[in-house]
Amino acid sequence: MDQKAMYSLSYGVFVLGTKSGDRINACITNTCFQTAAGPVRIAISVISQNLTCEMIKESGVFSLSVLDKSCTFDTIKNFGYSSGRSVDKFRDFKYEKDSNGCPYITEQVCAVLKCKVTASMELGSHTLFVAEVQDAKTISSLAPLTYAEYQKNVKPEKAGQSREHKKIIGWRCKICGYELMEEILPEDFICPMCGHPAEDFEPIYEQ
Amino acid sequence: MDQKAMYSLSYGVFVLGTKSGDRINACITNTCFQTAAGPVRIAISVISQNLTCEMIKESGVFSLSVLDKSCTFDTIKNFGYSSGRSVDKFRDFKYEKDSNGCPYITEQVCAVLKCKVTASMELGSHTLFVAEVQDAKTISSLAPLTYAEYQKNVKPEKAGQSREHKKIIGWRCKICGYELMEEILPEDFICPMCGHPAEDFEPIYEQ
Repeated sequence: MDQKAMYSLSYGVFVLGTKSGDRINACITNTCFQTAAGPVRIAISVISQNLTCEMIKESGVFSLSVLDKSCTFDTIKNFGYSSGRSVDKFRDFKYEKDSNGCPYITEQVCAVLKCKVTASMELGSHTLFVAEVQDAKTISSLAPLTYAEYQKNVKPEKAGQSREHKKIIGWRCKICGYELMEEILPEDFICPMCGHPAEDFEPIYEQ
Repeated sequence: MDQKAMYSLSYGVFVLGTKSGDRINACITNTCFQTAAGPVRIAISVISQNLTCEMIKESGVFSLSVLDKSCTFDTIKNFGYSSGRSVDKFRDFKYEKDSNGCPYITEQVCAVLKCKVTASMELGSHTLFVAEVQDAKTISSLAPLTYAEYQKNVKPEKAGQSREHKKIIGWRCKICGYELMEEILPEDFICPMCGHPAEDFEPIYEQ
């Protein structure tokens, strides 16, 4: 299989917020589509090991903030490159809560959906949720950020550095940010955080 | 609910090909994401009333051709604006078949996935399929067409005409192309083809 062909699927970039009891959390996801009408339902796919996924299973509700073109890497890094098990991701971010109690950020976002899970499917590495969109509102008039634009324009560019003579000191999962600090990435390596294969890793060079 | 907020979800545009017995067919879809790894699986959502959907249920296999930026409206119209029940959509298109027997077009396409259904969920208007990607290949180096680009650049522009003094003679579903040739579209109208509501219709003006 040509793994690069999989990268031709187009995505948006979202902050997926949820709650469980008094606790709130969020992560970054790029997988969401409208899956049905009457009532409007969306499908999302979430890494099963993520705290956000566990909490959605517990509460059955989530918010989806659609990131717009003003989105900065700090926002992606804050919500996507750490775990809510060890940090409070909302500490430094302005947010509100919808009537389900789910947090959503109000800046760098063009729209927010308020959602209630109606079905789910366990798929090993990920859980697929189908949810009714109970409410949807427009926040800004900026266009949504696509995942391709995130990769091209938002993610820090290191290509300016000449990498040719730099030593590889580790490998970073492009999907979840997990870092394996070994010079060699085994071909059959599977990311312990998100289950993605070696093809989804990029080298980390010595500084 | 602000229906426009739903339009902020980013999508690609795909030709979804399938077979059943000796028959082949295809339709246009914009809903596909990778939903799991190990093995790689995608999720797609298909209008339940579509012949393509029925045939996928019968055969359990499909191809997904990722349309690229060279895609023309003729291609979208051919596969998306008519039903395989009444026309042979592949009559005028170059295509090949994958080893499952599913057809895929070879022009205006940057990648093709060969897929086998592993699970499905009935959602009324639509059916959600989860499928293992058995093979994936790159066809062209052009970037994939996004649904937003399709709406902006590929779909015929009629805005150049002054519509202000033109009479509305009908309404067209922006999702599936169904046309209701009535001057007034009832507020609670639901598309009989795809189940989408009145908000998803656009006026048809007299020529």
